[in-house]
Amino acid sequence: MDLWWNNNIKATKFVKEFTAGEDIELDQQLVKYDVIGSIAHATMLNKIGILSTEELAKLKKGLKEILKLDKEGRFQINVFDEDVHLKIEDHLTRKLNGIGKKIHTGRSRNDQVLVVVRLFSKEKLLNIQENVLELCSALVEFGEKNRDTPMPGYTHFRKAMPSSVGLWALSFVESLLDDLISIKSAYSLNNQNPLGSAAGYGVPINIDRELTTKLLGFERIQNNVLYVQNSRGKIESAILSALAQVMLNLSKLSNDLIIYSSDEFGFFDIPEFLCTGSSIMPKKRNPDVLELVRARANTVISYLSQTMSIIKDLPSGYNRDLQETKGPLIKSFNILNRCLDMTGAVIKNLKVNESRLANAFNSQMFAVDEALNMVGEGVPFRDAYKNVELNFLHPPKDLQNPKQAIKARTYTGTTGNLGLHNLQKQIIKEKNILLAEKEKFKGSVDRLLR
Amino acid sequence: MDLWWNNNIKATKFVKEFTAGEDIELDQQLVKYDVIGSIAHATMLNKIGILSTEELAKLKKGLKEILKLDKEGRFQINVFDEDVHLKIEDHLTRKLNGIGKKIHTGRSRNDQVLVVVRLFSKEKLLNIQENVLELCSALVEFGEKNRDTPMPGYTHFRKAMPSSVGLWALSFVESLLDDLISIKSAYSLNNQNPLGSAAGYGVPINIDRELTTKLLGFERIQNNVLYVQNSRGKIESAILSALAQVMLNLSKLSNDLIIYSSDEFGFFDIPEFLCTGSSIMPKKRNPDVLELVRARANTVISYLSQTMSIIKDLPSGYNRDLQETKGPLIKSFNILNRCLDMTGAVIKNLKVNESRLANAFNSQMFAVDEALNMVGEGVPFRDAYKNVELNFLHPPKDLQNPKQAIKARTYTGTTGNLGLHNLQKQIIKEKNILLAEKEKFKGSVDRLLR
Amino acid sequence: MDLWWNNNIKATKFVKEFTAGEDIELDQQLVKYDVIGSIAHATMLNKIGILSTEELAKLKKGLKEILKLDKEGRFQINVFDEDVHLKIEDHLTRKLNGIGKKIHTGRSRNDQVLVVVRLFSKEKLLNIQENVLELCSALVEFGEKNRDTPMPGYTHFRKAMPSSVGLWALSFVESLLDDLISIKSAYSLNNQNPLGSAAGYGVPINIDRELTTKLLGFERIQNNVLYVQNSRGKIESAILSALAQVMLNLSKLSNDLIIYSSDEFGFFDIPEFLCTGSSIMPKKRNPDVLELVRARANTVISYLSQTMSIIKDLPSGYNRDLQETKGPLIKSFNILNRCLDMTGAVIKNLKVNESRLANAFNSQMFAVDEALNMVGEGVPFRDAYKNVELNFLHPPKDLQNPKQAIKARTYTGTTGNLGLHNLQKQIIKEKNILLAEKEKFKGSVDRLLR
Amino acid sequence: MDLWWNNNIKATKFVKEFTAGEDIELDQQLVKYDVIGSIAHATMLNKIGILSTEELAKLKKGLKEILKLDKEGRFQINVFDEDVHLKIEDHLTRKLNGIGKKIHTGRSRNDQVLVVVRLFSKEKLLNIQENVLELCSALVEFGEKNRDTPMPGYTHFRKAMPSSVGLWALSFVESLLDDLISIKSAYSLNNQNPLGSAAGYGVPINIDRELTTKLLGFERIQNNVLYVQNSRGKIESAILSALAQVMLNLSKLSNDLIIYSSDEFGFFDIPEFLCTGSSIMPKKRNPDVLELVRARANTVISYLSQTMSIIKDLPSGYNRDLQETKGPLIKSFNILNRCLDMTGAVIKNLKVNESRLANAFNSQMFAVDEALNMVGEGVPFRDAYKNVELNFLHPPKDLQNPKQAIKARTYTGTTGNLGLHNLQKQIIKEKNILLAEKEKFKGSVDRLLR
Repeated sequence: MDLWWNNNIKATKFVKEFTAGEDIELDQQLVKYDVIGSIAHATMLNKIGILSTEELAKLKKGLKEILKLDKEGRFQINVFDEDVHLKIEDHLTRKLNGIGKKIHTGRSRNDQVLVVVRLFSKEKLLNIQENVLELCSALVEFGEKNRDTPMPGYTHFRKAMPSSVGLWALSFVESLLDDLISIKSAYSLNNQNPLGSAAGYGVPINIDRELTTKLLGFERIQNNVLYVQNSRGKIESAILSALAQVMLNLSKLSNDLIIYSSDEFGFFDIPEFLCTGSSIMPKKRNPDVLELVRARANTVISYLSQTMSIIKDLPSGYNRDLQETKGPLIKSFNILNRCLDMTGAVIKNLKVNESRLANAFNSQMFAVDEALNMVGEGVPFRDAYKNVELNFLHPPKDLQNPKQAIKARTYTGTTGNLGLHNLQKQIIKEKNILLAEKEKFKGSVDRLLR
Repeated sequence: MDLWWNNNIKATKFVKEFTAGEDIELDQQLVKYDVIGSIAHATMLNKIGILSTEELAKLKKGLKEILKLDKEGRFQINVFDEDVHLKIEDHLTRKLNGIGKKIHTGRSRNDQVLVVVRLFSKEKLLNIQENVLELCSALVEFGEKNRDTPMPGYTHFRKAMPSSVGLWALSFVESLLDDLISIKSAYSLNNQNPLGSAAGYGVPINIDRELTTKLLGFERIQNNVLYVQNSRGKIESAILSALAQVMLNLSKLSNDLIIYSSDEFGFFDIPEFLCTGSSIMPKKRNPDVLELVRARANTVISYLSQTMSIIKDLPSGYNRDLQETKGPLIKSFNILNRCLDMTGAVIKNLKVNESRLANAFNSQMFAVDEALNMVGEGVPFRDAYKNVELNFLHPPKDLQNPKQAIKARTYTGTTGNLGLHNLQKQIIKEKNILLAEKEKFKGSVDRLLR
Repeated sequence: MDLWWNNNIKATKFVKEFTAGEDIELDQQLVKYDVIGSIAHATMLNKIGILSTEELAKLKKGLKEILKLDKEGRFQINVFDEDVHLKIEDHLTRKLNGIGKKIHTGRSRNDQVLVVVRLFSKEKLLNIQENVLELCSALVEFGEKNRDTPMPGYTHFRKAMPSSVGLWALSFVESLLDDLISIKSAYSLNNQNPLGSAAGYGVPINIDRELTTKLLGFERIQNNVLYVQNSRGKIESAILSALAQVMLNLSKLSNDLIIYSSDEFGFFDIPEFLCTGSSIMPKKRNPDVLELVRARANTVISYLSQTMSIIKDLPSGYNRDLQETKGPLIKSFNILNRCLDMTGAVIKNLKVNESRLANAFNSQMFAVDEALNMVGEGVPFRDAYKNVELNFLHPPKDLQNPKQAIKARTYTGTTGNLGLHNLQKQIIKEKNILLAEKEKFKGSVDRLLR
Repeated sequence: MDLWWNNNIKATKFVKEFTAGEDIELDQQLVKYDVIGSIAHATMLNKIGILSTEELAKLKKGLKEILKLDKEGRFQINVFDEDVHLKIEDHLTRKLNGIGKKIHTGRSRNDQVLVVVRLFSKEKLLNIQENVLELCSALVEFGEKNRDTPMPGYTHFRKAMPSSVGLWALSFVESLLDDLISIKSAYSLNNQNPLGSAAGYGVPINIDRELTTKLLGFERIQNNVLYVQNSRGKIESAILSALAQVMLNLSKLSNDLIIYSSDEFGFFDIPEFLCTGSSIMPKKRNPDVLELVRARANTVISYLSQTMSIIKDLPSGYNRDLQETKGPLIKSFNILNRCLDMTGAVIKNLKVNESRLANAFNSQMFAVDEALNMVGEGVPFRDAYKNVELNFLHPPKDLQNPKQAIKARTYTGTTGNLGLHNLQKQIIKEKNILLAEKEKFKGSVDRLLR
């Protein structure tokens, strides 16, 4: 190996390929955001006198051209470009000569990465919220339609008590709405402007961070310039925590669906066009898509602990290790959006087998009802419990009616009182909040690209 | 092994020990919360006519007695009790006979675990916030005192640019304040009343969840009773995500301190009474406490992924696997509180070696200043950069002054403009919000125990 | 907090409690091994002239006394002892005065921890192997008894093809036997003598590592003294990888048993004395013990990644972070041994419901047989597959016989050719190897304690 | 979304894209192995009479053609092919008509995936061993050259005792050689033939697994056909455990190098052509490549826990979740091989600064030597220790000589007795074993492709 080090091109390629890693591929998705960030930075440089108005205009034109080239698939990053940021600077320098050489005044590449990842995450977090709310709507619709369909409730994977398809479906809606709390908290952490940190220690020129914050539509400045650099990976892990919460939901939903659509349960049917066959067994229909949702939750959880591990022992200030937090983030957004799509498709096309659900009930599932019946007659619960434990054989027939049983649970949150209307209202409210936030984001991007 | 199964006591002990696991030990910390939850439940049972007012009074007296016994260390849970919940019910039954037998009406043990863990977490999350804010105050004080002390800024573990002790210390304050966003988001998720879910499918009696919600001081009802059960482990993992964020901060702070107090750097001195010696090397002083903070961050991160993995593939409804989410949560709170204490003690007693800091500066750290100096004279940045890259030897003397350099960075968030006042205001604001929330929580607990 | 630092006892306690962490509790299990290691070290010090023969005799007596005290529960480590090593040295010093002061010549506490953890792990790895082989025997017996009992084979949690209870049970035996390869590899890594590394850089006296290696029964010296220290956590993680493999097996076995003993499947019955009831539902019988095995697999997997994360970024040489690798190791051994016990108990008492197994077969499970039937008549497989896919209704009756079907699979490893005899032979062989290794280990320990 | 389900092509694409995931890209690396596996299977089908000798010859020709196309980059898998296995079968069917339709007789796609992943892993594990041994050689050469160069030994990131560059470098060699134990154990687990399991339950035809085992060069048959399917992900995780061990070594080595080449330490110089610059700071040289090695260790550790989590709760038999174990495996091999290359390049070009190493010694590092000096004069160690602790100021000058100090440690494994010759012999031995195994593997592949 030693000898070829004399060959500089080989050595450079060896190092560049190693350091680039997956960046070449990942950065292709980030061109748009670096253009936006660069326009804001250039606008600020104009304001503080480093770029003339004419220079700014040329740079903006050049950057918008890059955006156009990228849309047409003609702005391909390769290993000798290193990354999207150098590629864009190089492009501007070649096209605009001296002007391109000025754009990097007062910023570092890590500054750029930070602003690009924040903008990207912002847009993706808005998408995720939209898709979560769409899945909620699908589940609410499904739950409402099957609101009064009895279904065995399980504990320990054994039949336990009377439940309903509605209770089951809406449990996921509430869980997803709670996940929005986590997503919005991560969104807020992400919604602060890192630009201006330079290499984490500022620069001795008069950077106007208030201006770039306003131009880029961030909610606030991320103040301390060293914290800006140290927050790389940290905010990513906060986002991944929130995404992991959603994936845990989708995994549970998928696992339930796999079980409930099995030969033995048969409560639901997954439509055939969403099933996959076998290469050896004719006639087999498998829920592969749901199994993959389940498996991919592990991917996102692993990305989370990977990201946390990467940043855990790094000394303050930028370290190249941080580059490896980009892949987990971008891929997790991708996974989550596709999985939300897929589970939505399954829910919208799911068939309910009322007869199999009804037949699945057994008398033991009414043991609590029997015991509480005795409680109504004045027997202390623990005595009633023991009585049923020892003597239970045939609970009174009128107790054994599933439809009646799920109506008899009438207090808040039970099968007879699901709170459907509240959920619908909450979903609409969340959709409106989201819409406003999306408009705002779009507004600032549009203004920059005008 | 087969034969002794005839021996029922042995078999029972075998199973009980296995299922109890660490619960015997962990549950000892939860007695107080089960007492509180049980009083609320009993009050509600009185309101809906299942307990007479006299019965309620006796139960409350019995429960308050348990609290007293526990404080005196005389309410020890053992393996045949199984857990805190059965122990308490048994105690009441033995003491109050028929009345104790009524308290479990309309609730399941899993209901109880949920309410107990929520109340425990609520109190602990308030503690954590308090300790985080105390650490912030210590860091702000330290940062203010050393605001204008120059310190090399590092990237890639190499000297990079002029920085200050103030910038370094305050970077952690801002990071910790951001962590409060995550903690409060987890607090909000946790602040919903699970009681009344029974085994996850409700019961056919008229449980009043609105009442227990009010009595226990929860912000809202966790509506869907199946979601209540499914949220076990989920809310724990949201809390653990937030705790992990703080641990990541403490780990970075500790790692920085270990490095900066080393023989080679010598920027800071950790006071000797917080150091530890060697069994073989006389005179050695080691930063063991900081190394352990760093290591324990891994513990909390692992508990997070453990908890997520436990819940990932569980079918809807209670499964015993969920018991294993209790240990990670309780232990993480413990670890975090102790680590916050310890890092606070280090910061409050840290000594700054100004001369070693000053001597650590070298001329290369002023290369950017030199390049930007040329920019000021009209040279495009990239040309200035190349010029310094090729010709840099002795940057102008007046550029090489650390004190001057950190003052010359004057825009938002840099060494000359740290935003100290804003931070102080924000900390006070957070402390006031926290105080109000603590009073509110204490108020509802006090009312129940009155 | 500042003020009480004047109070030295409080400060010392604060630091000691923090640094001790769980060690006080964990170290109690390690007294025996430190006694053994210390006798070997003292014997060596005698040989190289640092201890007289009389001093050695006194030290051995003192150490054996400690062993006796420990067995009687009268050697309790507390927080001011710090750990088992200092406690033992202090005890010897107090009892034997000047002689106790000599025992630490040429070793460091980290040397001791290393040797203690190796000896402990050695004994535990032998236990684990024994328990794994016992579980194999139980599964082989169960599999043999139910060798020809047809059972549906599943893919994608859907009925797929004819299988047998024997094939299912023995699949776990082969997996566990493969795990022995991993365990023995970890055992071999662990079977090297660390003693003599001192603090990782040796000492300028004439330590005889060959002698302690022989005395302690290690297979070889771990040569490089810095590597000795750096291998802490590394060998632990190799052991944890192997333990995690076994836990993955037990988790899969438990999960299968939970599914197959459910109401819907009903293939197996878990004996009632191994089941647990519900606090609210009379008559409920739950497989809690299996759910906990499944959950605890996550614990061991998390301990593995925790241990790897702890060591990942540590600079060469001892760092206190390494202390935190002790808990995960000790607890994992504990968890695994108990889970092996419990799954063994379940398998030994498991009942097979032949009729439910038989009834679970459906005609579609014979689709491959039908297609291969056509292949036998010269139809290319893919054509036969398509034919069955399109036209399959009633495969020939004689094909639909489960008993016949599982006998018709006759090649190596299939239901008609399970290789039971080979497995039995392999288990006996492994048991003999293990027995010899155990004798050897016991021999060296006995000789030291003589 | 609902409406377009009427559009079958869109629905199919939606499902195919989702299920394919990364497979399209990953499978491109596996063409060769599927060709090999398919030739072995076809040869066996010929032997048992399902393929004529002419048909076999045509299939072999077709398969070898695919290999050629693949080498020329003309065998591109796309999303409608689903995966490499169907693509190859389709290709054969189109080219050879009826004959292609016969090749899938008696095997399933999961059978194929298993055999392909085993063959791929076998080759990669051999590569890894080769690269590990190359790195060992580089480290031995470096260690030998700097055998007697004194270097401070650190504990707790503080100067502790005299050490040498040789001791440091060779500590990694021994650690890597220990890793070979783990790799070979994983290799052995992987070296068993899965082919013939069909879908995990065998088929009613006379598959000859002994023949395919011999043809493919596997060491033994993996017997139980259900275990074959259940071992997917399990063997992957055993491999990943071994790879993680190596990455932990590389991460520690890289971290040490980053520290030792820093401004403050300055022990080593990383050659400039392996360093990377800064976009904002002229003259900066950063060890990015080493930082990335360190970060990528996290990736492999995460892939390990991801893989374990995926398989943990899967019921027996194939589940589609298992597909997600392919990416982590393939990518980890990739990462490890590149990181071995890179660290090798750094070691081969590393410069040692003897003067900075010498200047880094201080008198406190000789405190143990001083104490042991007193021990030589009859003072018990603990008294000597205390004496030095209290009175140490200027240890005798002749003790403070680093060169002398590292020579004075003469027992096994210390600076004066590194065991270099043994290491060299062991490396040669391992290289020879490896060479033989590589020849064997190549032999069986060549025979199949002849």
